Amino acid sequence: MKDVVRYADGVAIPGEDFVAREEPLEIQLGAASLAVVMRTPGDDEELACGFLVTERVVDDPSQIVSVRHCRQARDPASAENVVRVVLGDGVRVDLEALRRNLYASSSCGICGKATLENALASAPPLDDPSSFPPDLLYALPDRLARAQATFAETGGVHGAALFDGRGGLVVAREDIGRHNAVDKVVGFALRAGRLPLSGHVLLVSGRISYEIAQKALAARIPVVAAVSAPSSLAVELATRARMTLVAFLRGRSMNVFGEPTRIRSSP
Amino acid sequence: MKDVVRYADGVAIPGEDFVAREEPLEIQLGAASLAVVMRTPGDDEELACGFLVTERVVDDPSQIVSVRHCRQARDPASAENVVRVVLGDGVRVDLEALRRNLYASSSCGICGKATLENALASAPPLDDPSSFPPDLLYALPDRLARAQATFAETGGVHGAALFDGRGGLVVAREDIGRHNAVDKVVGFALRAGRLPLSGHVLLVSGRISYEIAQKALAARIPVVAAVSAPSSLAVELATRARMTLVAFLRGRSMNVFGEPTRIRSSP
Repeated sequence: MKDVVRYADGVAIPGEDFVAREEPLEIQLGAASLAVVMRTPGDDEELACGFLVTERVVDDPSQIVSVRHCRQARDPASAENVVRVVLGDGVRVDLEALRRNLYASSSCGICGKATLENALASAPPLDDPSSFPPDLLYALPDRLARAQATFAETGGVHGAALFDGRGGLVVAREDIGRHNAVDKVVGFALRAGRLPLSGHVLLVSGRISYEIAQKALAARIPVVAAVSAPSSLAVELATRARMTLVAFLRGRSMNVFGEPTRIRSSP
Repeated sequence: MKDVVRYADGVAIPGEDFVAREEPLEIQLGAASLAVVMRTPGDDEELACGFLVTERVVDDPSQIVSVRHCRQARDPASAENVVRVVLGDGVRVDLEALRRNLYASSSCGICGKATLENALASAPPLDDPSSFPPDLLYALPDRLARAQATFAETGGVHGAALFDGRGGLVVAREDIGRHNAVDKVVGFALRAGRLPLSGHVLLVSGRISYEIAQKALAARIPVVAAVSAPSSLAVELATRARMTLVAFLRGRSMNVFGEPTRIRSSP
């Protein structure tokens, strides 16, 4: 709860308001700091695991020995904001390359095309024959809305939800960062032994950026849906990776980008 | 323009659609790569300059010798996606510390409090006596909407706008990343010799995250307004930094967080 002054016209009424929680989370690989993300606390282990999947460090739960909040932090508040992941002996990680990938390119030759080549080099195009009738897709936003409690309370978080091939909700997560909500969903799926996520649909609130499409590709999700628009680079990645983007999913209409054949029109 | 298949109920109509452009931009300091941001092309020099202000590298246009797209890139497409900034001899930059700051913390002691201390250490609390009547604030969202062309076309971008103390629009910029839109606005202001931005209001579409509040603080903007919610850490930073957050600015109502005295209620 935060102090607030509510104005209606010129009238000011002091009170309190719920706001979505935002705190930094440091993800450590062993004793090394890998990244800090600004996230809504909760499901931190899933977030860390999903981050490692969508950054293409791991793809199987057996590669992760342990995931837990750091016990060596100086005070309890910061212990809540550090998750340490210990990987199996067989998992090779080029920590420097990974960090560089997270914040900068290494040469004066960056462009959208190079970015796509890089994503596709480590996650090849999808070869997923699953398809979905429009009615199944039209029903998903309501299901996400029903599963998304915080949003109704604060209006300040993003949601991501994973559905199976029959439209059944597998998991829904929310976070102040849309990409974190996706990582939490993917982390859940990893720990539940559900990777790769062929035959599934990922629904996100807001729009489909390149980053969201790239994360879905790493988790091998064939269909990404959203109530809002995709970006140009997300569409280009989807087209190259044979991923289906379902945008502007509102009521009984949608705009389909990328691979169109996964929508099974009624006969 | 991207290929699209539009569905209404079960009927599919192929066509084309505008989508918001998203491309990586590499920001270089001299020959060194500082960061890559995913942005909507356009106003790239402003984006690079604003990024350097809000990451607290520069605060005066005289510190920047030149800002231009890279001429040494291997092909024209990537030349469009690299901006090189040359700083004056007197400007000291700890490149490693800056990069680390952009992607990770250095120790197992991270928490919201430490994040706030860090932000406040390099950008002290605001001592800005300006104040604004509610009516001035209520009028701002319409002005941003009118200035925001791409949004109407694609539905996929964020807007940021800077207003002076009388509610006059100084500059409006849009981008697929909300933080980029803010950096573009701040970069414009730097180059126009308007920094520090005391007495100004920053309006952003969407919500007010910690990152947005931190960028506004670095540019010394006393009031940040949005049609959506703030995050907890944004409110905590605003309270500590004596910044005013105007949230849920819709019609003739708003919720004010942080420093409340900058709203000048009608007598």
